[in-house]
Amino acid sequence: MDENLRKLRGFREIYPEEMVARARIFNTMRYVSRIFNFKEIDTPSVEPLDLYRLKSGEEIVSQTFSFVDKGGREITLVPEITPTVARMVAQRKNMLKPIKWYSIPKLWRYEEPQSGRLREFYQYNADIFGIWTIEADAEVIALAQAILESLGLRGKYLMRISDRNLIESILMRYGVKDTEGALRLIDKMEKIGEERFREEFEKITREIDIMDFIKIKGRSSMLMEKLQGLVDDEILQKLQLLEEYLQVYDYGDFQYDLSIVRGIAYYTGIVFEAHDFRGELRAILGGGRYDNVVSLFGGEKVPAVGFGMGDAVLEILMKRENLWPSVDESPDYYIAIQGNNRIYAIKIARIIREKGKVAEVDMGGKSLSNQLKYAHKIGAKNAIIVGDEETRENMVTVKELESGKQFRLTIQEFERMLNGKK
Amino acid sequence: MDENLRKLRGFREIYPEEMVARARIFNTMRYVSRIFNFKEIDTPSVEPLDLYRLKSGEEIVSQTFSFVDKGGREITLVPEITPTVARMVAQRKNMLKPIKWYSIPKLWRYEEPQSGRLREFYQYNADIFGIWTIEADAEVIALAQAILESLGLRGKYLMRISDRNLIESILMRYGVKDTEGALRLIDKMEKIGEERFREEFEKITREIDIMDFIKIKGRSSMLMEKLQGLVDDEILQKLQLLEEYLQVYDYGDFQYDLSIVRGIAYYTGIVFEAHDFRGELRAILGGGRYDNVVSLFGGEKVPAVGFGMGDAVLEILMKRENLWPSVDESPDYYIAIQGNNRIYAIKIARIIREKGKVAEVDMGGKSLSNQLKYAHKIGAKNAIIVGDEETRENMVTVKELESGKQFRLTIQEFERMLNGKK
Repeated sequence: MDENLRKLRGFREIYPEEMVARARIFNTMRYVSRIFNFKEIDTPSVEPLDLYRLKSGEEIVSQTFSFVDKGGREITLVPEITPTVARMVAQRKNMLKPIKWYSIPKLWRYEEPQSGRLREFYQYNADIFGIWTIEADAEVIALAQAILESLGLRGKYLMRISDRNLIESILMRYGVKDTEGALRLIDKMEKIGEERFREEFEKITREIDIMDFIKIKGRSSMLMEKLQGLVDDEILQKLQLLEEYLQVYDYGDFQYDLSIVRGIAYYTGIVFEAHDFRGELRAILGGGRYDNVVSLFGGEKVPAVGFGMGDAVLEILMKRENLWPSVDESPDYYIAIQGNNRIYAIKIARIIREKGKVAEVDMGGKSLSNQLKYAHKIGAKNAIIVGDEETRENMVTVKELESGKQFRLTIQEFERMLNGKK
Repeated sequence: MDENLRKLRGFREIYPEEMVARARIFNTMRYVSRIFNFKEIDTPSVEPLDLYRLKSGEEIVSQTFSFVDKGGREITLVPEITPTVARMVAQRKNMLKPIKWYSIPKLWRYEEPQSGRLREFYQYNADIFGIWTIEADAEVIALAQAILESLGLRGKYLMRISDRNLIESILMRYGVKDTEGALRLIDKMEKIGEERFREEFEKITREIDIMDFIKIKGRSSMLMEKLQGLVDDEILQKLQLLEEYLQVYDYGDFQYDLSIVRGIAYYTGIVFEAHDFRGELRAILGGGRYDNVVSLFGGEKVPAVGFGMGDAVLEILMKRENLWPSVDESPDYYIAIQGNNRIYAIKIARIIREKGKVAEVDMGGKSLSNQLKYAHKIGAKNAIIVGDEETRENMVTVKELESGKQFRLTIQEFERMLNGKK
């Protein structure tokens, strides 16, 4: 094939056997979102590039599929949907709060494709708008955990939670002015290694050994023990309350982990990431509170907390843990035709499909024995054989393909069988 | 809001009340595809521009969202998925035939947005690969009709079917050499008007009054009557057989209509379009047989027939006919909290959600009476009131919001109620 016609690097062609698993997973996400009373929305796939500059700075430009359109405007394939969703909230000022929304858009990033990172991927997103208090953070984290639990991942991942206010108040206590820069550096720590991290951090301040703090991991009692007196009691109490809530929600394990800060500048409170329990993969999902973003699109300040979960790492983890769904999509009935009886066969197909069962009709050219072989190959549960006699007498011959059992029924008997009555 | 941050023209933000209708429609499409034993696939949203040049010529370039990527390559948002799907078939030579695939991708076209035409839209697509005979055409057309029937549109649309071989053989009979050009012109007839069409057509040939043929509409008996002796009997017999099949499939009305030729050059046989019965809108769907496309991507020639159906015209028609779904997404239970009993309320939410029912828990800050007012406003079917007494005694107070009826249950009784047992 001509090289210019091949699919692009980092993009996916998804064949049926893979798609059916993916559809199952998306349906699970939709089901869990629904019982939590989140509503689905859909968003444009192309937006003005400025939308991301506003929220994430000039840096984002190099990571997007951006281009100049025929009208001379800088536009881009969307790399994340938070700005769009925030705009949708800002545009309809009179919506009842809280607003609980989710979506499963395709997103695009112009980065080097590698394990768990594609240029085109699906991302489940959920947000709550309109609640300032930790109750919303708890509901969002519980939703994330409930989805992972429903996918069979309980015990296979760890939810790591932190609070930007907590880190910031430690930094400020030690006189750090550039807290933004310090957070960005902490975010990169795992990537650049401890040694280089220390070197870089000393350029910001020599007043603290920040590693002492970043390494704090555990439940809120641990935070109390190590941080009481160092940070506002209010922050610690909030984290204690969040812990209580998540224990009652009871969708999976979690711990506080002060090394979690999230790279993106717009987070204003709780931040969290879920990682596979072995710690081998990128984050499965990440999110946090971002109370200042909606007001960028309108006057009013609307608090917000949410998360995003791409499908690439999830797929790797689920496959590693043998949790990737294998779904049986084989047809219930294959209708094999003998002689010139296609019209009657189509009638039978219609009857089967009307009952919500899957029917495939032979499309011609094969002998009866080859039709039956084909029915076996595609995993059909039953074959229906339609010949002159069946057509004349308004009967069907049913062959159960696994047992080989074969029997004849009148159309009425067959319909009763389809209805589940023998 | 800054003009540079607004959504682009021809793109959509879909809020929950619209999304839930759309999701219902997509689910209907998936359901019908499934009982016909079509399998879902997914395709890249960005492809090399050459992919469409190959199939549709240079003309396509002006109608696509195409651009030069950071690697200097001409790429585009996909305007249709047939080339991608054909490539996917060509790449896996050993797949069992027939292959029956469907998908519901987003597609993009750089055209002036207008009624029924957006720059970004969803398009349901389905194809059968591997069958040369009219049986596959019948199955694909029946699938299209079955989807429209399931959406409530039986009687609200007309399936118009033609055959390129038939038109071509008429044209050739009268010595037309540029059959491609003639077909393109016929395709434009409704747009440019009869007068201009005649003028243009006379430049191609003065041998026939082509309008005599284009105006032929009806069942195969009508074709027989008007065309016997003018075209190969084989063509007419094929159309007669197709008619017989579609009558037995019985998913809706159809007629032959020789004005249907489809604009795209790659069709090689049967072509069809469904139009609203009043003929006010653009085509609801369109498709046909394209036996030469797969071989462009590999050695083997694989026959194919399929169709695409965008969501924009469908939405206009369904709304006009009051068939646009209105779906109740209100929560089953709103849990209102009195005093300091949130932990118990979250427990109740978990129990409700475990049963697959939708629960929303108050997130704080409102008085009980305001919580109940809010529960009414969001259409909750029931409120659960959780106060000190309920928490202490492991009870729930259930208030049916429509009737106002209120009663107290133990947790066990409540669980039985959730299970549907009183």
